[in-house]
Amino acid sequence: MKSAVESSAAPGEETDRQPLPPGWKSYMSPEGLRYYVNSSSKETTWRRPSSSAGAPQRPLAQQNSSPYANGCHSSTKKGQPAEAMNVSLRKPMHKQPPGSISPAKRQIKEVKETKITINCVTFPLPGEGPEQQLLKPNEWSYCDYFWADKKDPQGTTSVTGFEVLLQKQLKGKQLQKEMAEFIHERIKIEEEYAKNLSKLSLSPLAAQEEGTLGEAWTQLKKSLHDEAEVHLKFANKLHTEVEKPLLTFRGDNFKKDLKKYDHHIADLRKQLASRYASVEKARKALADRQKDLEVKTQQLEIKLSNKTEEDIKKARRKSTQAGDDLMRCVDLYNQTQSKWFEEMVTTSMELEKLEVERIEWIQQHLRQYTTLRHETDMFNQSMVEPVDQLLQSVEPAKDRELWVKENKTSEVRPVDMDI
Amino acid sequence: MKSAVESSAAPGEETDRQPLPPGWKSYMSPEGLRYYVNSSSKETTWRRPSSSAGAPQRPLAQQNSSPYANGCHSSTKKGQPAEAMNVSLRKPMHKQPPGSISPAKRQIKEVKETKITINCVTFPLPGEGPEQQLLKPNEWSYCDYFWADKKDPQGTTSVTGFEVLLQKQLKGKQLQKEMAEFIHERIKIEEEYAKNLSKLSLSPLAAQEEGTLGEAWTQLKKSLHDEAEVHLKFANKLHTEVEKPLLTFRGDNFKKDLKKYDHHIADLRKQLASRYASVEKARKALADRQKDLEVKTQQLEIKLSNKTEEDIKKARRKSTQAGDDLMRCVDLYNQTQSKWFEEMVTTSMELEKLEVERIEWIQQHLRQYTTLRHETDMFNQSMVEPVDQLLQSVEPAKDRELWVKENKTSEVRPVDMDI
Repeated sequence: MKSAVESSAAPGEETDRQPLPPGWKSYMSPEGLRYYVNSSSKETTWRRPSSSAGAPQRPLAQQNSSPYANGCHSSTKKGQPAEAMNVSLRKPMHKQPPGSISPAKRQIKEVKETKITINCVTFPLPGEGPEQQLLKPNEWSYCDYFWADKKDPQGTTSVTGFEVLLQKQLKGKQLQKEMAEFIHERIKIEEEYAKNLSKLSLSPLAAQEEGTLGEAWTQLKKSLHDEAEVHLKFANKLHTEVEKPLLTFRGDNFKKDLKKYDHHIADLRKQLASRYASVEKARKALADRQKDLEVKTQQLEIKLSNKTEEDIKKARRKSTQAGDDLMRCVDLYNQTQSKWFEEMVTTSMELEKLEVERIEWIQQHLRQYTTLRHETDMFNQSMVEPVDQLLQSVEPAKDRELWVKENKTSEVRPVDMDI
Repeated sequence: MKSAVESSAAPGEETDRQPLPPGWKSYMSPEGLRYYVNSSSKETTWRRPSSSAGAPQRPLAQQNSSPYANGCHSSTKKGQPAEAMNVSLRKPMHKQPPGSISPAKRQIKEVKETKITINCVTFPLPGEGPEQQLLKPNEWSYCDYFWADKKDPQGTTSVTGFEVLLQKQLKGKQLQKEMAEFIHERIKIEEEYAKNLSKLSLSPLAAQEEGTLGEAWTQLKKSLHDEAEVHLKFANKLHTEVEKPLLTFRGDNFKKDLKKYDHHIADLRKQLASRYASVEKARKALADRQKDLEVKTQQLEIKLSNKTEEDIKKARRKSTQAGDDLMRCVDLYNQTQSKWFEEMVTTSMELEKLEVERIEWIQQHLRQYTTLRHETDMFNQSMVEPVDQLLQSVEPAKDRELWVKENKTSEVRPVDMDI
């Protein structure tokens, strides 16, 4: 979106291809729509003016929303109940006085309120103004959904949409820390398990079993130590490939960067609020001036006082000045809002990208966890095989031979005694 | 082996097919060899006698060992140093007196000692007697190698070969108990591990992670509980399929049965010892009688005394009686030894069978252990798969959609303020 600046026709835009009549300039609204302003008559219109200058165009009342209203009055109306506090609504200001029509006044008609300003940010009312297209359709992008402030449940303060996005990123940092903690706990469990298995593998229980059965038993005991090694290796890899990365991903600088974003956007909001205050002040001043002019004009007509035409001209001049002031204030406000808008889009897209990266990074490292688990089970399985092989080659006959050779008491049988 | 009883020719045995000359009988020795005895002349020989009765056969000195020596003397000689105490050796008793030859005396020659009795059990001396074939060649069978007693290292007592075999079986029972203990310790380790994993699976860490990543994380945590279940199952199966069987295999009755064997064999040894004592006593009595006869004969010849022929006949009769007694004692001894021999063979074969069964039973149950280990690792692996699948389907875009729908603050962008 661009600021409301004077601009030539955009490509593809429908134009009359006629030069504008004198006094008329064309501008592009933030929505990307072209409008036209006559700075002398203070008229604004969506319709490209024809060469008959000076004549009022289609009255504003019949137009939807115009970027700038006539300097004399403002054109928002009270719509649905405000979502937040500090809603600034402006009621229609004037009735047409019977019979007295001044060029400026002639423009004053009852106009629909089409916009609403909440917390100094201006939105179109529902159903008013051209339908908005999402900046990034079908993407559920941050830049489309976080313009308004959110009232907090207690109802006393509100939080900007941007804050919500920021909090999400900070939360993400906390969650990754908690995941690291979880992995750490798993590591401790594995180390304990390994320690216990290793200790038991050194047990002298049944160490006196001999022969092929003894060998198989010895290997069975040893396999516990091998299993322990597998689990220790698992624990170590968990630490270096999952826990540590989870802890160190996006260090302290990350929080600092987020804070910078936070302050920058908050500053722009403050500026906006300040501009908005100026607009409200200028509006009031204009209202006062217009009232004064009206009163004086009435008084002249009914010869209530000795006010001269001179006084009325003065009042009218002041009124016009106030109108100009208001226009300038509104213009400045809109510029500031546009700047904030741009920064919001840029920064929220940055946060969106950070979130995608965060999710993908965590996904990758948790897959490393499952890979390590899988590996561990496979290694563990292979620790049993030597045991099974030795068990398969247990031979009672061989064991008997070994034992008998070792323990026999004689190789000679008794014979009968001779006399 | 059979007792030394009168028997007819065994099948395949070489015979002269002549009837034995009168006075001769044939017997089978414990070694399974046939020998012949002339009960009147008290001759014994391996060679089948020919019809010329009464004549002395090949002198004993030229024969290897004869089952029964001539009633007048015993025929063992001092051989290698005795392995155990209570070795009973008998020296050659007589020299041939010059000129005086009585029928009995004429048989007395110097004979080699071919047997040795150790702890009341009689063995052939090395190199003496027919070579012994193993009862169960190439099998290293218990029944071939545990006839002798074993001196214990301190040198004060000895232990029978049978005791050695029995101790092995009792040891085996202890070893199986120790194996059960080992398995029990493994079970405890598994239960602890399962408990820890299960507890950690309930951790609320990073529970606030949402969307597809949150789902994957939730499943990851849950998988720890699934792993815990696998290990618990392993522990339970270890208990019912390995530990408990190891504990209950061969219950208390086994020890009782072994004790029965122990006592039975020990009793037979006691009987043998008692018979042996009788033999020794009879031998001594015979020696006394023969001495007496000799003295009296000498005295007669040198007219030393007024001993009559009558006295000498009496002395000779007593001598002969003593000889008969000795023969009977030796016969009883040999019968008892044969009985003990038979029981030893039977029982040691039983123990041998028990040992084979023990080894095979343990082998089978330890293979059950490795099977369970293998299964456990496989089940464990499958617990990781759902986690990995969910991780694979993590989609940052989807998560953004879900989160934005839930947390968005507006769907409308700001627009410029109108005047």
